Amino acid sequence: MKPVYFDNAATTRIRDEVIVSITEVMRHNYGNASSSHSFGRGAKSLIEQSRKTIAKYLNVSAGEIVFTSGGTEADNLVLRSVVRDLGVVHIITSKIEHHAVLHTIEQLKKEYGILVSYINLTANGDIDYSHLESLLQTKGKILVSLMHINNEIGNVLDMHRVSGLCKANNALFHSDAVQSIGHYDMDLQDIEVDFLAASAHKFHGPKGVGFAFIRKNSGLQPLIFGGEQERGLRAGTESVHNITGIEEALKMAYDNLKEEASYIKEIKQYFIDKIVKEIPKATFNGNSGNLDNSTYTLINVCLPIPPKKAAMLLFQLDLKGIACSKGSACQSGSSQNSHVLTEILSDTDLQKPSIRFSFSIYNTKEDVDYVVNVLKDFITD
Amino acid sequence: MKPVYFDNAATTRIRDEVIVSITEVMRHNYGNASSSHSFGRGAKSLIEQSRKTIAKYLNVSAGEIVFTSGGTEADNLVLRSVVRDLGVVHIITSKIEHHAVLHTIEQLKKEYGILVSYINLTANGDIDYSHLESLLQTKGKILVSLMHINNEIGNVLDMHRVSGLCKANNALFHSDAVQSIGHYDMDLQDIEVDFLAASAHKFHGPKGVGFAFIRKNSGLQPLIFGGEQERGLRAGTESVHNITGIEEALKMAYDNLKEEASYIKEIKQYFIDKIVKEIPKATFNGNSGNLDNSTYTLINVCLPIPPKKAAMLLFQLDLKGIACSKGSACQSGSSQNSHVLTEILSDTDLQKPSIRFSFSIYNTKEDVDYVVNVLKDFITD
Repeated sequence: MKPVYFDNAATTRIRDEVIVSITEVMRHNYGNASSSHSFGRGAKSLIEQSRKTIAKYLNVSAGEIVFTSGGTEADNLVLRSVVRDLGVVHIITSKIEHHAVLHTIEQLKKEYGILVSYINLTANGDIDYSHLESLLQTKGKILVSLMHINNEIGNVLDMHRVSGLCKANNALFHSDAVQSIGHYDMDLQDIEVDFLAASAHKFHGPKGVGFAFIRKNSGLQPLIFGGEQERGLRAGTESVHNITGIEEALKMAYDNLKEEASYIKEIKQYFIDKIVKEIPKATFNGNSGNLDNSTYTLINVCLPIPPKKAAMLLFQLDLKGIACSKGSACQSGSSQNSHVLTEILSDTDLQKPSIRFSFSIYNTKEDVDYVVNVLKDFITD
Repeated sequence: MKPVYFDNAATTRIRDEVIVSITEVMRHNYGNASSSHSFGRGAKSLIEQSRKTIAKYLNVSAGEIVFTSGGTEADNLVLRSVVRDLGVVHIITSKIEHHAVLHTIEQLKKEYGILVSYINLTANGDIDYSHLESLLQTKGKILVSLMHINNEIGNVLDMHRVSGLCKANNALFHSDAVQSIGHYDMDLQDIEVDFLAASAHKFHGPKGVGFAFIRKNSGLQPLIFGGEQERGLRAGTESVHNITGIEEALKMAYDNLKEEASYIKEIKQYFIDKIVKEIPKATFNGNSGNLDNSTYTLINVCLPIPPKKAAMLLFQLDLKGIACSKGSACQSGSSQNSHVLTEILSDTDLQKPSIRFSFSIYNTKEDVDYVVNVLKDFITD
């Protein structure tokens, strides 16, 4: 039985070329980038090259990219510093953000007594833009933190609209873009976001590295203090091999974006069509059933399976070699419902099992056929 | 010209076996350790195996090892949380700690108004234990943060004595052990330290991974919030390949410790003897000229070279393929004197160039001959 990996929103297989590049660096460039001798300069130059490459794809300057240990650290860096150092007293967010954002904001509320507002959501999990607009009228310095693409239901934020509203109301705008960087073109001269968080392992790069985009002159201060690495914004010896890994992964993602996205879109549409045909009572959560207003990288399906059988569903899928997820990976070990689905589903639908299938270039239509057949058996027998 | 790498206290070459192990994991185990399916469980089991291996070598339980992105993050995690969550109002440290500790403490002083005391140092850079004892008499909850082995001058802290004093006075004890883990056996049932920081790339492991030892029931809370990784103590998808890398590196370091330490000790003694013979006016900073009370991994030499020629010394050594350092790597780009040497050297000695040479199993006596000859030329011509 060939395993079928449909959990690419949790993490992706590293591209072979990325592995080669990481291995080469480990073998030949072990200097500390802070050292002034040739070994150090070699490491430094690899890091600065990676920074330039990434900056170029996002149309920003290299100094605006700060390498971190991943998306979660990047979110924490931004959120903590805007409150501590930039005088933000009010964070506007939504209840369906990733825990890296939600739990950090809760913690900051506890530590600093900031006001936290949650934007109303539509039945499909989109944010209510007019509610955001009215929340932005409140006094005091505001940060809006909204993810670009929701990791569970695939809804896409209108980044232009939100950044426009933030600019108009003199608020800062942070976006957890972990599900979109590497999957969507992003011109940050066009989208006036102040801060972004990204993670390599979501686009076939290594785990343990990501970056924050921090717009010039923002005044942000570190989360991790110590040496002067990352222009004083993030202390700690740089993970040179992981940083060249994220460079190579981002480069390959964007250089091949058009054809790869089109391949994956076909997989998604095929999956949707197949489910509609074979399991007509299934419904799609959020916007994920519609390619026009959700990411091409995932679907989230609510299945017509009674609770008794549902309890064993993920276990059974796993036995059959199918990797997928109840919600975000961070929660998949827990018995609780996804905090995202809890916000948007009816009580009846919450009783039924919902499964997220998320795609990559390594998936095939045969994978879809296999999975839908297994699901179908599960429903009819 | 074969380059000579004598900057192993800044970072070390990754062992070939560690590279192989990292590469294997990247190729075959790309699951997210938080996922409940087989890919996720595979990754999780690698991480838990690494945690167990490391715990065994330090004689602690696996739950007391928390993986981080490195030593600096581990220091930040401990220092911030003891102040924010454990009610520490007074930190006792020394002025020759690593910046990961010093700058973090300065930041915490700014944020929380804690009291910070610096222990007096002897002329050689050892801490004045009776001063520590008297500082421990002050009221309010105290944390003592002292590094095990000084990264610039190699002085070794008496961990038993400090942990004993801390216990007796009901104070917490944190130690940045970045220069000692992997180089010295450490039984943490015997040494009653509460917290330790360690970093893989100091003992031939990958950059971008380290760990905090956090003694059970300490009540520590995260620095990075989000998912429930690392038993809720450190959010963010785990860098599985780096974690197996630190496991393999630590295992090899401790399994070969006796013979490798003895090999490196010989190099150090040879280097000392050679300098004493060839450059008799040179002096050794801190305890580094004496193997009995300094680490076997480095020497720090003050060279009888006039300021005019001294300015070009590191540059000239680099031209001749010799990698070494003025102080810690974090400062080597700067024109300032090392903060460590500033504390312990006379004004006269501070005018002369001091160089740290730090060793590993990949060095040879021929490397030493070459370097001392170059230094000698520099002095006599």
